[in-house]
Amino acid sequence: MDPELFLLKAFLPLYACSYDVTVISPRNYFTFTPLLPSVCAGTLSPLSCIEPVRSLTYRNGRKVADFYEAHCTDVDFKNRIVACDSRQGGHFKVKYDYLVIAVGSESNTFGIKDVAANAFFLKEVEHAMAIRKKVMNNFELAALPQTSEKERDRLLHFVVVGGGPTGVESAAEFADFIKEDMSKYFPQLIPHVSISLIEGGSRLLGTYPPDISAFAEKTLTEELHVKLLLRSTVVGVDATSVRYVSNEPGASKEPKELLHGFVLWASGVGEVPLVKKIIAENFPNVEGKPRLRGLPVDAQLRLLNQPNVYALGDCAAIAPPRLADAAQELFSKAGAAEPTPQWLGRHAPTLAQQFPQLSPLKFNFAKLQSNEHLPADQFKSFLAEIDAAYRPPAPTAQNARQEGIYLAKVFNECPHPEEKADAPAFQETWNGSLAYVGSGQAVAHLPYFNIKGGFLSLPFWKAVYTQMQITWRSRTICLFDWLKTFFAGRDVGRDHEYYNH
Amino acid sequence: MDPELFLLKAFLPLYACSYDVTVISPRNYFTFTPLLPSVCAGTLSPLSCIEPVRSLTYRNGRKVADFYEAHCTDVDFKNRIVACDSRQGGHFKVKYDYLVIAVGSESNTFGIKDVAANAFFLKEVEHAMAIRKKVMNNFELAALPQTSEKERDRLLHFVVVGGGPTGVESAAEFADFIKEDMSKYFPQLIPHVSISLIEGGSRLLGTYPPDISAFAEKTLTEELHVKLLLRSTVVGVDATSVRYVSNEPGASKEPKELLHGFVLWASGVGEVPLVKKIIAENFPNVEGKPRLRGLPVDAQLRLLNQPNVYALGDCAAIAPPRLADAAQELFSKAGAAEPTPQWLGRHAPTLAQQFPQLSPLKFNFAKLQSNEHLPADQFKSFLAEIDAAYRPPAPTAQNARQEGIYLAKVFNECPHPEEKADAPAFQETWNGSLAYVGSGQAVAHLPYFNIKGGFLSLPFWKAVYTQMQITWRSRTICLFDWLKTFFAGRDVGRDHEYYNH
Repeated sequence: MDPELFLLKAFLPLYACSYDVTVISPRNYFTFTPLLPSVCAGTLSPLSCIEPVRSLTYRNGRKVADFYEAHCTDVDFKNRIVACDSRQGGHFKVKYDYLVIAVGSESNTFGIKDVAANAFFLKEVEHAMAIRKKVMNNFELAALPQTSEKERDRLLHFVVVGGGPTGVESAAEFADFIKEDMSKYFPQLIPHVSISLIEGGSRLLGTYPPDISAFAEKTLTEELHVKLLLRSTVVGVDATSVRYVSNEPGASKEPKELLHGFVLWASGVGEVPLVKKIIAENFPNVEGKPRLRGLPVDAQLRLLNQPNVYALGDCAAIAPPRLADAAQELFSKAGAAEPTPQWLGRHAPTLAQQFPQLSPLKFNFAKLQSNEHLPADQFKSFLAEIDAAYRPPAPTAQNARQEGIYLAKVFNECPHPEEKADAPAFQETWNGSLAYVGSGQAVAHLPYFNIKGGFLSLPFWKAVYTQMQITWRSRTICLFDWLKTFFAGRDVGRDHEYYNH
Repeated sequence: MDPELFLLKAFLPLYACSYDVTVISPRNYFTFTPLLPSVCAGTLSPLSCIEPVRSLTYRNGRKVADFYEAHCTDVDFKNRIVACDSRQGGHFKVKYDYLVIAVGSESNTFGIKDVAANAFFLKEVEHAMAIRKKVMNNFELAALPQTSEKERDRLLHFVVVGGGPTGVESAAEFADFIKEDMSKYFPQLIPHVSISLIEGGSRLLGTYPPDISAFAEKTLTEELHVKLLLRSTVVGVDATSVRYVSNEPGASKEPKELLHGFVLWASGVGEVPLVKKIIAENFPNVEGKPRLRGLPVDAQLRLLNQPNVYALGDCAAIAPPRLADAAQELFSKAGAAEPTPQWLGRHAPTLAQQFPQLSPLKFNFAKLQSNEHLPADQFKSFLAEIDAAYRPPAPTAQNARQEGIYLAKVFNECPHPEEKADAPAFQETWNGSLAYVGSGQAVAHLPYFNIKGGFLSLPFWKAVYTQMQITWRSRTICLFDWLKTFFAGRDVGRDHEYYNH
C-alpha cells in the first residue's frame, strides 16, 4: 500500500498552519495492494482497491494539498528541485523545502533471464487488469475449434512463482474463480485446467508459523487441486515454459520444464528506476560491503547526508546509528550501575528512541538478562552484536503505513528543522498478517492468537481489509463489490483492445 | 444492443430438439449500449452494461450453444462456410446450414476528413473506457503547473457532435460528472470547463415531440451550462479543433472553428467491414439506384438471393416485396368489392403479413378511407405510392431486439425450410423512447403519454433500463453500481498505461 497516502492523510490536520504540501505521483490514485489478487480474478472491481488522491487533497471544497500526475525522474538535492515528466508528455520542475520519497518498489526478477518479458507482476491495478485479461484470453483461445488438446493443457496451466501472501492469495483466487465461475461457463475446459505454485522455501507462507503453512498447503492442494512445487527455484521463464531446479539436498541440478499459459511472478522486491538512480549517484558501492537494498535513511527516516530529504516504505532501508559507535558514551552513562546487559535491557525503551536496534521486535530481550559486569571492550563488542542483529523494517504495507504515520506526526509536532532531527527514532510494531488461502478459508498470524480457516475466517479477513482502507468511500465500494459478486458471480467478460476501424 | 442476444435467448427453449447453435463474436459479451454514456462518466462500471455470452450458452451446467470468440471475416455462401479470425491470431472455418448475420453497425463519419483519427465513438465498452480515460487525462494535464490558461480552456472544452439520444445523454452525463464530482476534486479548474453540443437539425432529439426537445434544451443549457450549436454541420475534426458551418438559411458558409480537448462523434450509423464486403461482392451498385444502407433482406429477414442466410439489426435493411408488383393479383382478389383504398385498409392487417408496407407504423391509414373505385392502372400507381412510403425499421436497439425475437420465433415454430419461407413478415412495433437529459431529469416519448422531467423521471428511466437488461445478473450489477455511485460518488481514478520497467 502506498505510504504517501497515510502521510497525506496525517498531514492534513496541520497543513493549513505549517506546510504547503504537493503530492507528485504517476497515477492519480493510491493502490490498496492487498486486494489486487481479488481484482485479478474479478472478485472485486479495480475501483475497490484504489483511492483517488484528490479525494484527500480537497476537504469540504478547500484545497489542502496540490497534486500533479507525473513521474519524478530526478532530484537535484543541491538546489532542492524535483524534475518531473507528465505522463502525457511535457516536463516541469518543482522546488521543495522538504522532500519525502515514498515511491514504493517493483518486482524483483533477481536477474533471471526474460522474466520481465514473459511473466506478469502484481504491483499495480493495471497489472491486475492485464492478468484478468490474459486469463480470459487463454480460456477463449482454448475454447476455439482449431486449438489442439495439448495446446489447451498449456493455455490453461497457470503458474504462480512465490509462496508468500501474494502468491498464495493469487493462486487461491484463481482456483476459486475457476471452480466457482469458469466451471459454469467453460465446463468442457475444466479437465484441462491446472494451477502450479513454485516456492523456493520448504513451505508456503514462510513468515507464518508452520501450522498455518500446513493448513494453507492442505487447503490449496486438497480443496483446490493446486500443485505445489516447494524447494524449487525458477531459473528461466519464456513465452510458453518455466524452467526450475530443485533445492532438495542431493537433487539433480538439471532444470525441469513446465509448459504454461500464464506466469505470475510474485516473488521479491526491487527498486524503481528513480531509487536506482539516486543510489548510483549518491551512495556508490563500497568494496566489500553489500549493495544497498533501498535508500539509506537514519532512524528518523532522513536520507543519509540529506537532512531535508526523507524516504520511507519499500524504497527505504533504515540504517540507524551504531550502538558500538556510542559505546563509550553508554559505558559512562551506566556509571555506578556499571555496564551490564541487564542495565541495557532496563534502559532499552528509552535508548530505542535513538537506537531502534533495541526495540523489542529487533532484539531478543532474553539475552539482556545477564547481570555480569562487562569491561569496556567486551561491552562494545556486545553492542556490536546487537547492531549486527538489526534488520530494517520489512518491505510490507504494514510497515510502510506505520512509517507514513510516524513521519507525518514528526512533521506536525516538530515544525522546526532542529526539532525534526531530535525526534524519537521510528520503531515499527507488528499487528499480525492475514492471507486468504482459497475455498472460503483465511489464515491469520496475530499477536495474541492464530486463525486457521473456519467459516468466520473469510468474514474476518474481509472485515480487516475493509477497515484498513483509507476512506469510507473505498470501504463502501469494496462492500458493494463483494455483495455484487455474491449475487451475480465474478466478471467473466473481458476487455479487449480498441476495435480498429 | 446486440440483437444476437435476444436471438440466442429465444432459441434456447427449443435448441435441444431442433438446432445446433454456434455463436461467433469478437467479444465474449454482449453490450447493452443504452448505458454506455453512464460508463463514460463513471456513473456505472463497464460490468453494468455487459452480459457474458456464456452466461446464456450454459444452462444448469448443460451446454445449449457453442461460442467462439472471433471476428467473422468472410462468408462463402456457395459452400456455406464462415471464415473466422481469432482475436488472438489464427484462422478457422465453420460450416453452417443457416446463418444469421447480426453484426450491428459502427459510427458513420460521412466521409468527413480525419474524424476517425481525432474523434471518439461510443459503440463499445472500450470506447466508453477510452473516453473516461481521455476526460481524466485532460483534467490531470490541465492541473499541471506548466499548462497555460489558454491550454486549460482547450483541454477542458468537451464537444459532442450529434443531438440524438446518445449525444444528449453523453453531454448530460459529462455535465453531471463535472458538476457533482470533478468540482470537488478540481475546483480550481471548473471555470475552464465547457461543453458544446453540435447538431445539424433545428432541435435536439429530433425524433421526439418538440416540447420534449425544448425541455431537453432548457435543462442542458440552463441547469448544466451546455452550449448548444443547432443547425450546424461539422465539416472537419483535427487533434485540437472542430470546424463547422451554419445551416441557417442565408448564414455564411465560412467554417467556424472551436478549439477542443475531446470530441465525441455520436452521429450516424455506418456499416462494419464484413457488411461492406458482402454488399460489394453480392449486391453491386445499380446505376441510378441509391447505394444500399445495409444487407438487403426480405420481409422474413432472409438475405436476398440467399434463402438460408438471415440478417437483422443495424446491419440489415428490409426490402419487402413490392405491392405494385402484386397489383394484378390484389386487383383480382378485391373481386366484387372492387379495388378501393378502403378495401385495402380493411385487409391491411392480413396483407401486412406479406407486405409490411401496410403495417400501421409504415402507412397512414387515414389515406385509405376513400371508397372511390380505382381502375387497374390507378390502383397500381396507388400501390406504388405505398411502396415508396415504406422505410425499413430504423437502426435502433428496440427494432434489433424485436427482429431477434421475431427470427427466433420463426426458427422455433417453423423447423422446415419451406415453413420458414412462408412465415408472416416482420413488423416492428414502437414502444417509446427515453433519454436522460442531465441534472436528474429524464424525458420519455411513449405511446400513451410523454414525460418531461420531474423527480420520478430518473427513477423511471433507471427502472426501464434495468428491466430491459437481459438477465438478473446484469440487473443486479447495475443496481449495485447505482447504489455505489449514490454513496461513494463516481470513479475519478484513471486507468493508465502499463508501467514500463
